[in-house]
Amino acid sequence: MQRYDQLLPQLRGLLDAGDDAAVYEFLLTLRPADVAILLGRLDDEEARRRVFGLLAPEAAARVLEESRSWLQRELLRCLPDHRKRDVLWHMSGDELADLVGSLLPEEGTRLLELIPDDAPAIRSLLEHAEDTAGGLMTHEFVRLRETMTAAEAIDHIRRRAPDAETVYYVYVTDDQRRLSGVISLRKLIVADPDEYVGDLMDRNVISVPADLHQEETARIVARYDLLALPVVDENNVLLGVVTVDDALDVLREEATEDIQRLGGSQPLEQPYLQSRFSELVNARVWWLLLLFVLQSVTITIMNHYGAALESVVLLAFFIPLLIGTAGNAGSQAATLVIRAMAVGELRFGDFFRVVAREAAVGVTLGAVMAAATLLRAALMNSPPAVGLTVALTVLLIVLTASVIGAALPIVINRLKLDPAVASSPLISTLADAAGLVIYFTVAGRILGIELG
Amino acid sequence: MQRYDQLLPQLRGLLDAGDDAAVYEFLLTLRPADVAILLGRLDDEEARRRVFGLLAPEAAARVLEESRSWLQRELLRCLPDHRKRDVLWHMSGDELADLVGSLLPEEGTRLLELIPDDAPAIRSLLEHAEDTAGGLMTHEFVRLRETMTAAEAIDHIRRRAPDAETVYYVYVTDDQRRLSGVISLRKLIVADPDEYVGDLMDRNVISVPADLHQEETARIVARYDLLALPVVDENNVLLGVVTVDDALDVLREEATEDIQRLGGSQPLEQPYLQSRFSELVNARVWWLLLLFVLQSVTITIMNHYGAALESVVLLAFFIPLLIGTAGNAGSQAATLVIRAMAVGELRFGDFFRVVAREAAVGVTLGAVMAAATLLRAALMNSPPAVGLTVALTVLLIVLTASVIGAALPIVINRLKLDPAVASSPLISTLADAAGLVIYFTVAGRILGIELG
Repeated sequence: MQRYDQLLPQLRGLLDAGDDAAVYEFLLTLRPADVAILLGRLDDEEARRRVFGLLAPEAAARVLEESRSWLQRELLRCLPDHRKRDVLWHMSGDELADLVGSLLPEEGTRLLELIPDDAPAIRSLLEHAEDTAGGLMTHEFVRLRETMTAAEAIDHIRRRAPDAETVYYVYVTDDQRRLSGVISLRKLIVADPDEYVGDLMDRNVISVPADLHQEETARIVARYDLLALPVVDENNVLLGVVTVDDALDVLREEATEDIQRLGGSQPLEQPYLQSRFSELVNARVWWLLLLFVLQSVTITIMNHYGAALESVVLLAFFIPLLIGTAGNAGSQAATLVIRAMAVGELRFGDFFRVVAREAAVGVTLGAVMAAATLLRAALMNSPPAVGLTVALTVLLIVLTASVIGAALPIVINRLKLDPAVASSPLISTLADAAGLVIYFTVAGRILGIELG
Repeated sequence: MQRYDQLLPQLRGLLDAGDDAAVYEFLLTLRPADVAILLGRLDDEEARRRVFGLLAPEAAARVLEESRSWLQRELLRCLPDHRKRDVLWHMSGDELADLVGSLLPEEGTRLLELIPDDAPAIRSLLEHAEDTAGGLMTHEFVRLRETMTAAEAIDHIRRRAPDAETVYYVYVTDDQRRLSGVISLRKLIVADPDEYVGDLMDRNVISVPADLHQEETARIVARYDLLALPVVDENNVLLGVVTVDDALDVLREEATEDIQRLGGSQPLEQPYLQSRFSELVNARVWWLLLLFVLQSVTITIMNHYGAALESVVLLAFFIPLLIGTAGNAGSQAATLVIRAMAVGELRFGDFFRVVAREAAVGVTLGAVMAAATLLRAALMNSPPAVGLTVALTVLLIVLTASVIGAALPIVINRLKLDPAVASSPLISTLADAAGLVIYFTVAGRILGIELG
């Protein structure tokens, strides 16, 4: 990222000097992805529009394709219609569909009216939900017939190459456009030019339905090391192709969303530094309030055991330590289980196995922590009954929190929600309440205090 | 993943029936990645070895390449030397180097002695640290000369294709093997057969040094939508090529490790369900103990304010709620910042900007929470002074925790540690201690209690 730390001041300097020709020359030395990143980092909207306005239509299209959707919308908004048309015309179908899909319906319609020839293809891509294989795929791929020879196939690819997003895997279809095989460009090149595609192709082709979730789609690309993955309808008719670069982006985005959810926020739409203040607050305040309301059950619990606290104030001293440990143990279990589900290593059928494991792990972790507690109590010359109370509580708390932390995400996933909503904060909050009840119950028994 | 839920019982049934011919037929219908996943899910080692023993050497090599390293080691260990040699011979260089690198030194040496012809190439790959571009790259790529024509280049690729891991991006080098350009197979195919590679190639080729960290390497592949990325030494000599499938695996692994660290565990080496019990305990117990020791500072704090607690036991009632909220706010800020650093959106130079933002966000979130607290206190008819104390504490706590949560990961990153060690549990632990001090200070002022 050091590169951008140097490029950005350079660009700013040229902009401040008002020398558009020099800015243009500078932009020519950069790749579209770099221009998109620099645009995203320029603080003021005026400057972003000025830079974008200098790009030739094709370069502008490439930069738009590499930009986040907030930037796409902003950059397009300021263009006059004739330039908008030129830029849109150069964009690839799947990127254009994503862009139109991110606009308000009437804005999208107005955009499509500018490019009447491409509009039907874009509309058909838009029929698929954005987060499915259909929403990821492109229409711009090469299809072959089984009856072509290798030489004919290469010739066909040569002619179609400029329009196709990928030419390295080529799909073979029948009269009804049903997918019958796949062949790599590498295999076509190595093959005898007179051999038939039907004899060369791999009939055992991996394909996915258009409504498969994008994360599962990307996982299949990753699992089989594919460069492209065909998308078919219920009759095995080839609808489009998902390319590896899109799969890669999906896996990164999904990981980012999971991490943000795990930390107790709604996922941000834009990079952290580019997020508006209101978005940062909005993504966090609702979870914080919800957890606050949930956590206020601890007041009721504390109140319930108020008499015990009044008779032995010492009890209160260990509360932050104990509930903190409960939260930590729960958070560990939850994140391990949530990630295992996200990468497809774990499913609902494993529920009892996971709970049994976490119970065993929780008892072991709890026993180690309890031993540490007793050691500490001995070194500090605490009253033995207090040491014993805290140690036994730690054991039970770590066990309970581990089981809750592991079980809750699996249950949430079963309810068709993202398991990552069982965030560290949520698990901690639940573990806190459970921990307090455990603590006062244990304390009541061991210290012989009247509870409640 | 439903597929494996059906395939696994099928495989087990065939194994239990003792019909090795049927197992072999069954394996032929699967892809290497599927066989690797099924092997990983078979519970007993005996069965795993039996299945692996049935595979032909080339199929066995592909399955090994797709397997996790624990499984690779186990499967290889049981093979007789002559079969081991056959299987290793079919493996690709970079996968073989990773495998050898995961063994004990003497085991690795013994393995390389079986394949004396390939050993030097493998050893040279092993010179690079496993988590760098050099550790990811393969030697099996095609290189061209500028003076070749497009037709000659395609012919050269055709002859080299069976050995090369990727043929879709081809690199052009000079007499000293220095990288001078890149050309895609697509461009070669579309080009006039008599045109020179030197005129067709892109001289502005993106390359990385061999010691670049694998995560940054994979990010470059993702940013520029590359299928392959060349690795060069300090003299721009082409050493190898990193392919997109490896980049994809790196990004997934790094995301998994970050998520596990964020939850307060050491990353697991194996999938959750395949992890041994001892590994699950080991990954968690040290963090749990460390946090326990850190958190025990709360006992000291509580003790310090013991007099205040004894005079107003009611104060204790709000402790779990307040420190829980501190942990939640800190956890939100930390995960947003950690992920932004992991995907390269944020660096040390942004420190003050981030802290200023989080201070503003924290005040806003805190004010909303304080308002909610006052509302709740009014509805519950709590004494106004107590409501005010809790509300003011919430405000200050959310502010402090947001700033700590955002600042600490950036500082940790600056110290060349993984920022994800600033996990939700660690941030919560620190926020708890800070929260208690804030609470008692505020309570002392507002309620006029003698502190300490």
